[in-house]
Amino acid sequence: MPAARDNVVVVGRKSVSDYVLSAILLFNEGKDEIIIKGRGENISKAVDVYNALKARLEDSLELVSVRIDSERVGPRLVSFIEIKVRRVL
Amino acid sequence: MPAARDNVVVVGRKSVSDYVLSAILLFNEGKDEIIIKGRGENISKAVDVYNALKARLEDSLELVSVRIDSERVGPRLVSFIEIKVRRVL
Repeated sequence: MPAARDNVVVVGRKSVSDYVLSAILLFNEGKDEIIIKGRGENISKAVDVYNALKARLEDSLELVSVRIDSERVGPRLVSFIEIKVRRVL
Repeated sequence: MPAARDNVVVVGRKSVSDYVLSAILLFNEGKDEIIIKGRGENISKAVDVYNALKARLEDSLELVSVRIDSERVGPRLVSFIEIKVRRVL
């Protein structure tokens, strides 16, 4: 398992707006790139967070990459998405 | 709105296995590349379909690109994912 990364917003049960705020706070702390991660059922919400963040930041948000794969969570193999975004001027 | 594309598997309420089968049938019809598309809540299932197809086809499946964005469906703006995959020898 990789070390926890301090530029990742892990999407769970909170609202889309909460995660948009978390992402903006990470950018304001000086992170250039952040990753929006969702597993299983939260993959859809992770894409919602990306779209809401894009609507908020418009051209100052750049989509760097989208990774999809699966990983073990306990005994189960769970799908995930990692959406990497960059804040530009 | 773009013309309907004949190489798209639109993921809805059916089971993951059903969409995996649809994808394999498209490949067997001779399509080189297909797109697995999911909107809203079905985005998560679209990634499940990709992972199940990958598990089935292993190295003969290549991930070409992942597109995320939103589109109007009636009055609502809905997130979507388009996962483009290619069958290789």
